[in-house]
Amino acid sequence: MYHIENAELLERMQYKISVNEFAKYIGLEFTSVEVGRVKAQLDLKKHHQQQNGYAHGGLLGTLCDIVAGYAAYSVIPTNRQVVTGEIKTSFFRAGKGPRLFAEGWVIKPGSRVVYCEAEVYQFNEKEEQKTVVKASTSMIVIGENF
Amino acid sequence: MYHIENAELLERMQYKISVNEFAKYIGLEFTSVEVGRVKAQLDLKKHHQQQNGYAHGGLLGTLCDIVAGYAAYSVIPTNRQVVTGEIKTSFFRAGKGPRLFAEGWVIKPGSRVVYCEAEVYQFNEKEEQKTVVKASTSMIVIGENF
Amino acid sequence: MYHIENAELLERMQYKISVNEFAKYIGLEFTSVEVGRVKAQLDLKKHHQQQNGYAHGGLLGTLCDIVAGYAAYSVIPTNRQVVTGEIKTSFFRAGKGPRLFAEGWVIKPGSRVVYCEAEVYQFNEKEEQKTVVKASTSMIVIGENF
Amino acid sequence: MYHIENAELLERMQYKISVNEFAKYIGLEFTSVEVGRVKAQLDLKKHHQQQNGYAHGGLLGTLCDIVAGYAAYSVIPTNRQVVTGEIKTSFFRAGKGPRLFAEGWVIKPGSRVVYCEAEVYQFNEKEEQKTVVKASTSMIVIGENF
Repeated sequence: MYHIENAELLERMQYKISVNEFAKYIGLEFTSVEVGRVKAQLDLKKHHQQQNGYAHGGLLGTLCDIVAGYAAYSVIPTNRQVVTGEIKTSFFRAGKGPRLFAEGWVIKPGSRVVYCEAEVYQFNEKEEQKTVVKASTSMIVIGENF
Repeated sequence: MYHIENAELLERMQYKISVNEFAKYIGLEFTSVEVGRVKAQLDLKKHHQQQNGYAHGGLLGTLCDIVAGYAAYSVIPTNRQVVTGEIKTSFFRAGKGPRLFAEGWVIKPGSRVVYCEAEVYQFNEKEEQKTVVKASTSMIVIGENF
Repeated sequence: MYHIENAELLERMQYKISVNEFAKYIGLEFTSVEVGRVKAQLDLKKHHQQQNGYAHGGLLGTLCDIVAGYAAYSVIPTNRQVVTGEIKTSFFRAGKGPRLFAEGWVIKPGSRVVYCEAEVYQFNEKEEQKTVVKASTSMIVIGENF
Repeated sequence: MYHIENAELLERMQYKISVNEFAKYIGLEFTSVEVGRVKAQLDLKKHHQQQNGYAHGGLLGTLCDIVAGYAAYSVIPTNRQVVTGEIKTSFFRAGKGPRLFAEGWVIKPGSRVVYCEAEVYQFNEKEEQKTVVKASTSMIVIGENF
């Protein structure tokens, strides 16, 4: 169930998401796609855990990469693509779930580089929102057929 | 089949690896564990792909995080653990496989932070080794029970 | 002229700032010190420029490092220090001044690592605030005498 | 006194360096310019110090940015420029000098992004080379007149 700002963008994004095998494999569900901001969520399962029973860092980094990448994709011309140039992810606390929320947004669009940030957060027992990881990334704009 | 320098280290690492659910879920296989350097590999499957049919960036970042983390783990006292403080991954070319090789190594050990690097590489049609991604990371040393 | 929340913090910070030779050499002026947030400014001079006449990237990174570092310093116990573990700085647009404003803040305090962010901004001809660079950093907590 | 591979490159680089005011202000001296690798050095002075008497982190980051940037510049077409997209610098030990050596190199050239690394090192009392900081950076290729 999407909240979406723009029907054409939705269509392009839904296609891109439907063919993203790894996003499906880890169980990501997109919940909102707007121009410059994308949200998703994931129910933490046993196969997402590292050795101490928390969300694996690679999983958390993947969530950031995906929502930031689609946020970048939402602000470029329709005949362009983005690829991740680099992403840095900082880990603030253990990812315990039970549900992880990922949000990615554009902080500086551009014709060559779209700079984005992303974070993954969860809610603790007191229903307080707590950031698990935060990422900053350079998304590189490329041609449609690279 | 491991090449291993130190039997006690091997035992500790094998246990840690055996309980790393996400590493198993993505299909990673460790191939070498030495003090300060860890190698692994993965056969690229359809469920590892992003929308263009190449290895997903999140997968590549995960590989770096895992081999760098275990490399850090190999240089700390047995009553300590490491967690990823932050990791930055740069993407040089598309990950096409068919096999991806990951290698992580310590560049600066320390009592508080173990700085590591990691890369994922593949071989092209001419059997040339080509780096796909390179990462730098700060692994934070913590107590056994954090 | 400082806006300051806490007299003891102010005293500690003023001492630290007075002995920071490089901050003085580049001409940085602190304008606000609060718990978890530090502001400074700098008038752009010819000796701050790179080859195209804009603020040098190293200068901009230095501004971020300084305000983030003092922000971290403001949230740790008085018998501890912080050192920069790593800092990543992203460059959004040319730094033209004539005045650059730097702001650093804590996003996740901790006993081992204090994660901070920082940015440098300027005002364009329309008096609009424009971010020049943004940084994310891991400040490592160490003992008083390291 | 330069060791240089290519006379035309030398000429272009010397011009670029001669107009880099901030590099001059901090006292950097270039010692070698080759295609894909640039070296420089700096004698540590009081005005380079942070509050504990060591090289300021911003100075060390600046050295990395400069040598990496010129390394990138040495591998692009003559009608192109590079600007720093982002740089991450990790701090391994205190910079004590008395002389700091900076070296930057290209790890992956490209038409849009030139990925580089850089490090600053010093020699201890036993004449052993010790890395002080290491950096990884994305240099963005732009047109001659941006």
